[in-house]
Amino acid sequence: MDEFYAETDLLLADQASMDLSTKYRSGANGTTEGRSSTVSTDDELLDIGDGRMEALGNWADLEEMEPKYSSSSNLMDTLEDLPSGIGQYEDFHTIDWLRDIARDRMRHRHITKKRQEGCWEKVLSAHDAWSGWVCVLLVGVAAGLCAGVIDIGATWMSDLKEGICKEAFWLNKEQCCWSANDTTYDDEGCSQWNTWSEILGAQTGKKAAAGGYIVKYLLYVLWAVVFAMLASLFVHSFAPYACGSGIPEIKTILSGFIIRGYLGKWTLLTKSVGMMLAVSAGLSLGKEGPFVHVAACCGNIFSYLFPKYGSNEAKKREILSAAAAAGVSVAFGAPIGGVLFSLEEVSYYFPLKTLWRSFFCALAAAFVLRSINPFGNDHLVMFYVEYNEPWYLQELIPFIFLGALGGLYGSFFNKMNIAWCRYRKNSKLGQYPIVEVLGVTLVTAILSYPNKYTRMNTSELIRQLFSRCGAEDKTMLCDYNRNSTSLSSYTSSTVAGDEVYTALWMLFLGLLFKGLITIFTFGIKVPSGLFIPSMAVGAIVGRIVGIGVEQLVVRNHDNPFFQNMCQSKQFCTITPGLYAMVGAAAALGGVTRMTVSLVVIMFELTGGLQYIVPLMLAVMTSKWVGDALGKDGIYDAHIALNGYPYLDSKKEFTHTTIAADVMRPRYWRYGAAQRNDPPLCVITQDSMTVEEVEAIFRDTSHNGFPVVLSSESQYLVGFVLRRDLMLAIANARKNQEGVVSNSIVYFSSQVPNNPNDPAPLKLRKILDMAPITITDQTPMETVVEMFRKLGLRQTLVTHNGNRQLYNKGKFYFKQEKKRLSVGRLLGIITKKDVLRHVAQLGNQDPESILFN
Amino acid sequence: MDEFYAETDLLLADQASMDLSTKYRSGANGTTEGRSSTVSTDDELLDIGDGRMEALGNWADLEEMEPKYSSSSNLMDTLEDLPSGIGQYEDFHTIDWLRDIARDRMRHRHITKKRQEGCWEKVLSAHDAWSGWVCVLLVGVAAGLCAGVIDIGATWMSDLKEGICKEAFWLNKEQCCWSANDTTYDDEGCSQWNTWSEILGAQTGKKAAAGGYIVKYLLYVLWAVVFAMLASLFVHSFAPYACGSGIPEIKTILSGFIIRGYLGKWTLLTKSVGMMLAVSAGLSLGKEGPFVHVAACCGNIFSYLFPKYGSNEAKKREILSAAAAAGVSVAFGAPIGGVLFSLEEVSYYFPLKTLWRSFFCALAAAFVLRSINPFGNDHLVMFYVEYNEPWYLQELIPFIFLGALGGLYGSFFNKMNIAWCRYRKNSKLGQYPIVEVLGVTLVTAILSYPNKYTRMNTSELIRQLFSRCGAEDKTMLCDYNRNSTSLSSYTSSTVAGDEVYTALWMLFLGLLFKGLITIFTFGIKVPSGLFIPSMAVGAIVGRIVGIGVEQLVVRNHDNPFFQNMCQSKQFCTITPGLYAMVGAAAALGGVTRMTVSLVVIMFELTGGLQYIVPLMLAVMTSKWVGDALGKDGIYDAHIALNGYPYLDSKKEFTHTTIAADVMRPRYWRYGAAQRNDPPLCVITQDSMTVEEVEAIFRDTSHNGFPVVLSSESQYLVGFVLRRDLMLAIANARKNQEGVVSNSIVYFSSQVPNNPNDPAPLKLRKILDMAPITITDQTPMETVVEMFRKLGLRQTLVTHNGNRQLYNKGKFYFKQEKKRLSVGRLLGIITKKDVLRHVAQLGNQDPESILFN
Repeated sequence: MDEFYAETDLLLADQASMDLSTKYRSGANGTTEGRSSTVSTDDELLDIGDGRMEALGNWADLEEMEPKYSSSSNLMDTLEDLPSGIGQYEDFHTIDWLRDIARDRMRHRHITKKRQEGCWEKVLSAHDAWSGWVCVLLVGVAAGLCAGVIDIGATWMSDLKEGICKEAFWLNKEQCCWSANDTTYDDEGCSQWNTWSEILGAQTGKKAAAGGYIVKYLLYVLWAVVFAMLASLFVHSFAPYACGSGIPEIKTILSGFIIRGYLGKWTLLTKSVGMMLAVSAGLSLGKEGPFVHVAACCGNIFSYLFPKYGSNEAKKREILSAAAAAGVSVAFGAPIGGVLFSLEEVSYYFPLKTLWRSFFCALAAAFVLRSINPFGNDHLVMFYVEYNEPWYLQELIPFIFLGALGGLYGSFFNKMNIAWCRYRKNSKLGQYPIVEVLGVTLVTAILSYPNKYTRMNTSELIRQLFSRCGAEDKTMLCDYNRNSTSLSSYTSSTVAGDEVYTALWMLFLGLLFKGLITIFTFGIKVPSGLFIPSMAVGAIVGRIVGIGVEQLVVRNHDNPFFQNMCQSKQFCTITPGLYAMVGAAAALGGVTRMTVSLVVIMFELTGGLQYIVPLMLAVMTSKWVGDALGKDGIYDAHIALNGYPYLDSKKEFTHTTIAADVMRPRYWRYGAAQRNDPPLCVITQDSMTVEEVEAIFRDTSHNGFPVVLSSESQYLVGFVLRRDLMLAIANARKNQEGVVSNSIVYFSSQVPNNPNDPAPLKLRKILDMAPITITDQTPMETVVEMFRKLGLRQTLVTHNGNRQLYNKGKFYFKQEKKRLSVGRLLGIITKKDVLRHVAQLGNQDPESILFN
Repeated sequence: MDEFYAETDLLLADQASMDLSTKYRSGANGTTEGRSSTVSTDDELLDIGDGRMEALGNWADLEEMEPKYSSSSNLMDTLEDLPSGIGQYEDFHTIDWLRDIARDRMRHRHITKKRQEGCWEKVLSAHDAWSGWVCVLLVGVAAGLCAGVIDIGATWMSDLKEGICKEAFWLNKEQCCWSANDTTYDDEGCSQWNTWSEILGAQTGKKAAAGGYIVKYLLYVLWAVVFAMLASLFVHSFAPYACGSGIPEIKTILSGFIIRGYLGKWTLLTKSVGMMLAVSAGLSLGKEGPFVHVAACCGNIFSYLFPKYGSNEAKKREILSAAAAAGVSVAFGAPIGGVLFSLEEVSYYFPLKTLWRSFFCALAAAFVLRSINPFGNDHLVMFYVEYNEPWYLQELIPFIFLGALGGLYGSFFNKMNIAWCRYRKNSKLGQYPIVEVLGVTLVTAILSYPNKYTRMNTSELIRQLFSRCGAEDKTMLCDYNRNSTSLSSYTSSTVAGDEVYTALWMLFLGLLFKGLITIFTFGIKVPSGLFIPSMAVGAIVGRIVGIGVEQLVVRNHDNPFFQNMCQSKQFCTITPGLYAMVGAAAALGGVTRMTVSLVVIMFELTGGLQYIVPLMLAVMTSKWVGDALGKDGIYDAHIALNGYPYLDSKKEFTHTTIAADVMRPRYWRYGAAQRNDPPLCVITQDSMTVEEVEAIFRDTSHNGFPVVLSSESQYLVGFVLRRDLMLAIANARKNQEGVVSNSIVYFSSQVPNNPNDPAPLKLRKILDMAPITITDQTPMETVVEMFRKLGLRQTLVTHNGNRQLYNKGKFYFKQEKKRLSVGRLLGIITKKDVLRHVAQLGNQDPESILFN
């Protein structure tokens, strides 16, 4: 049987949470007669729509409200008794935001009401009011700590590829050379730092011999392969969810989907260790995206300390949004950028309160990371640019050009990466993840070692590309022909020397290599982020363009077009580093399609507040060009590739379909063509026996059933969840005198009192009396809007009497005509139906969407 | 008769827009039979829910769809034929977001469909796709220009209070002295700059005599009074809407309310000129808040160039949100801060697309203003801080203290200001706005002249307070006892000299004066902003605290607690300017309760990216303290004071009421107590005559009517707007053969064909067949959520059969019982009802809410 609304998922509704909700209710009703808290009649089954039902308290016929709940037990105690990790939804189900939020308000009202009762209750109430702030504070601190540990570990292990510190093996190269107090310190290290070739005796002294080079090369490759193998083994054995960047999945989770274990402690541990290993292996990936996943894991874990969040999926997502902000905050030292990233890119439901909490969480995380100071520089900003040169109007032309290049690269990368990931999914390659990782690592290590720009840490490369050539810089990129030794001349541009051109060639080769290998790297089964490789590609392009523009201006300094840039022949101020910044922003923008958050991240990352206009312009251009070539950013593309049930709130629904086209069963609309659609499975409010209801359980897998007045009229009375109903019936059969298979199930308020019949089963309390309904004529754009904005799981469709449900002249269930009165229940639309419909209209395969 | 759902407002539905919508429909239906575009039957009246109806196109019985529309006319031509300023809602009505957005999608579909038809259509389609970007570009440029003109004008006029430039009267003091090329330039001006006392001959040379001082004092007061009088006369005569900051009203407008003329060209002109005058008068107000209003006016005016936005209130609000961002962007030179301000503080409906456009708009505005360069300094940032000193962990204590002070000041200010405004409203004072302005100006001018810190421009004061004492600074605040003349010693703190203490006393007096006078100034009938005065108050407190901490540390430099701040006795680095920044942010935060946007504005304003942690901490503390003392920020408080119909999306609705408590008529719930509530006014779908419908128009003022199956069953069929129905009937009577008073109005699809009856009037096409409905059992929290998130104007309430509509044991319309079948229409809830309900639960007077 088709499970046509199977995703109207059930509550887990385990015994513990049932008890809990009973207590909520009892407190709210203010009844104080004692009774054991392990009640076992249908009174337990009040979990559905507590808020709604509580709201009806004073409205309901009072004699129906048997006042027999326990209310003396302490709420918080009970909440802490719950084993952590208990959720109320099953894996791969969507959540019902409206219901969860109503449940939370109900809990909040209960606490507010109890506040008057005593001192302890006042403390509890204060604890409840502050728990959100405390929770995000803890999450922020934890995210900062994790990031600090990972940063330190990754740096140490990266340097391990080259050598080890003689005296203190736990120091990385930089720290080792600090402790050595050498006067000279070059790329090759210092007296304390021993390269592997030195240790193995393949070379004597610091002189690089051919043998030494080969030994170093081999050991570099060996270490890389070992690290990568460890990383992929870790991921493979302990937490398969730890691979990739995690952002597509977090987006899906935040949109109201359950992926159990995705944010668990094993994932956290595996991802943290795996990230260090993968970065150390020298793969073309960053640890910035995975930081978001790590922070979200912290958010999930800490939310269980506060039952307000841990036991309410909608509320938990507020913490997760804040955690995502903290992740970006520690990744780039950009707290504001993190908040905006959470808002623009990952979050779905982002009320202002969450904005404030995210802000606080990001702040705490950045502060902790700054205190740990893993990089040893005091700047919170990662690629601090020390220059403050102005930019000129003419430069906007190359900036826009860089933006366009970034957009082109972004959509090229996205298309190729998705194609490769799809190939991996559908071919044998997907069955050998570890082999793939090893292959990619081998290629990366072998190709990247000879080129010094690809061999070095990618962050270090970006830092070099962003920076200006200072007076002491002797690097290849800074080999300018300066005929003055005064300090001031270093702020201006001059003709480049030969080494600059060599460096440009090396950068160009590095660009090709990075641009291509990243396509194959993003998606392999190790933790991998995209930010840093994309920025590196953009920064290389930017630096190349920047040096080009610089040389053009210097060589044509008397051209009127460049006049305002050059005070004299010697003093033209073009800053190639700024071009690298702009290029990096453009490339990252092209790949992810971020805008505001990206600009903020860029200037928090560099401190270059005065370059906001160039950055904004390049990012907007990049987004426009990218969007023209392909609508989706990389994260959305991966969501679509994996078929996550994500109802994108950015995309407008522009089709003209109506609810009747989407609802199940569909034959009302399409007649014979859809005749094999099973009829809508409903329960009547006062005429079905326990046996009949149980038969429905056996025959269908639907997770919820509309309750109607009678099977003839089909007027909607309410909605009941399968699990609630099953538990209620099972409980009643066990504990309630006289309830047998022949008992009638009553959802109505009037229950006839006939002594000859078996005892009736009164289930009015588990009925959701106010399900959201629409008419069959409602345009789908309104329906989609309602699903997005109200966070619905399902909506019931009733008949609007003004239209007939079949086209004239064709035989479509004419015999049904007499029944089609106004207000009659016709069908149901679930989130899955909506997603399938959207996919269908977008020419995607609707069956590819993942659902339980 | 009670107009119980009068705010389900009507469309203006003028002839022109009617034609237009007919064309939309015809195009979408693909019928091509020509017919004059000035059709005059009921076919014209398709304006309601075009999108919804169009969606039904292929669904409706086709013989009902008379294919007689014109589709050959060109859409854009028609749109341009519309006189600008035509709106579809009446003044002081709420808008229906769902309907407007559906209307826009329908228009978009039409254009997309026509794109295939030819080259010109392709151009039109491209124009349509880009018009949003073009519009925000124009708005940004216009906002930048306005801001430039206002800045230049205000500076010139401010200086006019003191004197005039001899050679070129159009130059302000600074420019005048530049042109003079004097070697010395002090506070008193230069050789070219003539003070009024010099011109009037009251003193000879530059020597200040007692007589000269009095003349300058008097002329200062005189000019101030003249400027203030002009400003208030301007506002009084040309545009009363131009007074105040405008932000509360813009918030209300953006939440979906119509205030005609509030954003018109007269308001723009008056506000611009009035702002220059009010600022020049030396009143304790800023021009930053009003910039938001000016930019919003630009947004409104330019949106009429693009009918997509000008003729669609929901779409227009997207432009207005972007314009608000541009306003803050030019006010502070803070484009990112502007976007966040728009998001956090003023906007209601802020999809990501609007985020991007706001970003672009703010960028364009900042860029134009930078190019105009009204202040003559090249920095885009207004109070650029040149220092880069670190801050220490211990300093967080005074920062938090400043935050708390800011929160205290904020809630004190808000309470006093609201109390004074309420007094003004309810007393005779409100009748003499010009006298009040003159009084406040007189007091301000007389009290502020003697103190040099209050006499100077407030922006200049803030700049001085934020900055560090450099080597050349000879101001009172920088009189430190430095026993070294080396430049480097200026970066460290030393013992303060006597003049510093004098300056502190003057600042303290200035603080008292500014803090109090602003309470009386904000709300007088001139354009006035709050940002700058609040920041000035905070900056003074901050500087005082900062100097206090500095002296404490310097005098106790060997205390272990301060050890890390002092390298030696001479080198303690405490920056009082940083405290001023933090204090300013805290005070502004306390008044407005902004958080993220405020921090971003602060660091865009100062360039102090490294001080993000102190700023964030102070702003969060300020918000917490402020919220503990009084929930509302100043803008929300003014909204409540003026009774604007603003459904705050920040506040949670936590009450347990249900829809039945709020809907009208209410007697179903409350019985006799509410018996005087008139019954629900409905129209039946196929049994009322034209005469009867017209009688309903006479008897009621409702703006819309539910259409039901029959008056017995009361099953809901649809919803029809009063104006649509009136126009349809008037048209039919004039142009349709045989329609007389006795004709039956049919909303149903089957129309009986009886030759003896008068010709029927078929109005099915103006019926909204998918109005949003809820059951009477729906908790109000869900209803409020739906109103907020979907932007509803009204929702219809139907009966859920499971509950009885009266409490047992009491006589509440028992005779109605038999009619209460499931699905029956019970009542209606409008936005006004929701607002009244929220006000009532918040112990406000529900009748104070402004509605038409």
